[in-house]
Amino acid sequence: MDTPVVLGIDFGGTKTAMAVAEAGAAVRLGTATVPTHAAEGGKASLARGLRAARGLLERVAPGREPLAVGVSTIGIPRENGVDLAPNIPGWAELALAQEVQDAFPDSEIRVETDVKAAARVEAVEGALRDADPGLYLNLGTGLAVALVAGGEVVAGRNGASGEIGYNLRSVADVGAAAGQRSILEDGVSGIGLLARARELVPGATGAKDLFAAVSTDERAAAVLKEFTDELAFHLVNLAIALDPARIAVGGGMVRSWAALHGPLRRALDAAVPFPPELVQAAFPFDAPLAGALTLARAAVRPQPSTAL
Amino acid sequence: MDTPVVLGIDFGGTKTAMAVAEAGAAVRLGTATVPTHAAEGGKASLARGLRAARGLLERVAPGREPLAVGVSTIGIPRENGVDLAPNIPGWAELALAQEVQDAFPDSEIRVETDVKAAARVEAVEGALRDADPGLYLNLGTGLAVALVAGGEVVAGRNGASGEIGYNLRSVADVGAAAGQRSILEDGVSGIGLLARARELVPGATGAKDLFAAVSTDERAAAVLKEFTDELAFHLVNLAIALDPARIAVGGGMVRSWAALHGPLRRALDAAVPFPPELVQAAFPFDAPLAGALTLARAAVRPQPSTAL
Repeated sequence: MDTPVVLGIDFGGTKTAMAVAEAGAAVRLGTATVPTHAAEGGKASLARGLRAARGLLERVAPGREPLAVGVSTIGIPRENGVDLAPNIPGWAELALAQEVQDAFPDSEIRVETDVKAAARVEAVEGALRDADPGLYLNLGTGLAVALVAGGEVVAGRNGASGEIGYNLRSVADVGAAAGQRSILEDGVSGIGLLARARELVPGATGAKDLFAAVSTDERAAAVLKEFTDELAFHLVNLAIALDPARIAVGGGMVRSWAALHGPLRRALDAAVPFPPELVQAAFPFDAPLAGALTLARAAVRPQPSTAL
Repeated sequence: MDTPVVLGIDFGGTKTAMAVAEAGAAVRLGTATVPTHAAEGGKASLARGLRAARGLLERVAPGREPLAVGVSTIGIPRENGVDLAPNIPGWAELALAQEVQDAFPDSEIRVETDVKAAARVEAVEGALRDADPGLYLNLGTGLAVALVAGGEVVAGRNGASGEIGYNLRSVADVGAAAGQRSILEDGVSGIGLLARARELVPGATGAKDLFAAVSTDERAAAVLKEFTDELAFHLVNLAIALDPARIAVGGGMVRSWAALHGPLRRALDAAVPFPPELVQAAFPFDAPLAGALTLARAAVRPQPSTAL
């Protein structure tokens, strides 16, 4: 009999990533990525992702249905929709778990917010192992954290814990309605930094172009300092509130770790009574996908055939 | 045989409060309070508190040693000292648990940071019951919170979670050494508000004098708005990070709840994606003492004679 497999899918704002893995071990049999094409709408994007996942499965595990499908997604998945997911038009109206179930009718389905899935895999087998409490910081297109306490990712009353992209940026913003102020993610995120990069570097396509310009352009250095200062302000106050043993940083911006680590390290040391460790995530660029696989594996663990 | 009793002691910055209660029920047999007289030093203050506790015990439960003594304290109790307790000189050097054990050699001893003890009793039988996660905000002489997740008060790696009195107040403070900037508690606390009150109300003895002046003095109203705005800024960002079902507010400043509730409520509603409930604590003025009793009761619960 063929080894049983699980499928993980991560629905992100710019791409949908997927992997098929053995159900009982951390061996990936294959991975694939398709663009989100957010402008085409959530329904089309979801269909494209599910088609690609089916295709991947047929290539690397022909004839096998996954025991479980773990899904990580932007936003907060509910039974009949996805909250806080404005980046893909129509994503808010998708009954994501049901749609995935329809595509894989014989599989167990689990769905979780991407950053929480990422924190889950970091806590189970990554950079937050044995860190209690632990704090996962996602510096990607957007900005969010996840709190790990007592070995569990804190979900929050509404599944919305860690959504610090919505943080107030200044005391002057207290009480102002959402449309009358910016939120932290507008400035402190890949998107926010790209916007600043474009002001300085013609044709910039990502925050990386700003990081690259820092050594030769004083204005770029000033923008980067503004960015790390504001990020550090919120990270310091989070670290004081949680008193984590360790902070693990994941997301695409970790590619510029050398430029981020120093300022964040110094800020933590200067202000947190018991400064936590600060490390790169073990799965910096695909933790949400790895987390989706962890979710899927956890869903099949009770089955004797795949028990450890 | 006489009903077994437990003793709770709360060592605070201005007073030491204590209560004797039945071990198996929430019935207090007597309470007492003595001043801290911080200037006389930690050793003298501790001795005064322990003498008063012994005296209370002899009055209300003569001949009975407590099965357990629960202690709440400012600062973070360690085996050989108390961290982050600058308000009582010498408190940092006290082996608090051992000193209490020496005074009550036949009793189980438990020691916990005051705000965490307060959150514990609120979570077990107070305003945070069935609130998961829950956030306890202490507005007293100082400023701190406690996070409740999965039914447990989050201790933090160093017992220091929730010590938001140390928070950075502005992005400009990032990286500055401790002596070169103020911390949140300097402004947002009973002590901080008293300092402002004295500028406006000659002879003010507490934040309450400022609250009383608000209706007739525009400057007092402006100071109060500054205070609630800065408090709300940090409370909003904490609520976004934790996504609590409910925030319970305790501490002496709750006496001015009518002036605090509105601004905090509006700030949460304007900025938190899923605004939590906001209520007064069930034990607003003596939650640390009630928490010390809860600690003591939990320590004796395993004994068959007092099991529920």
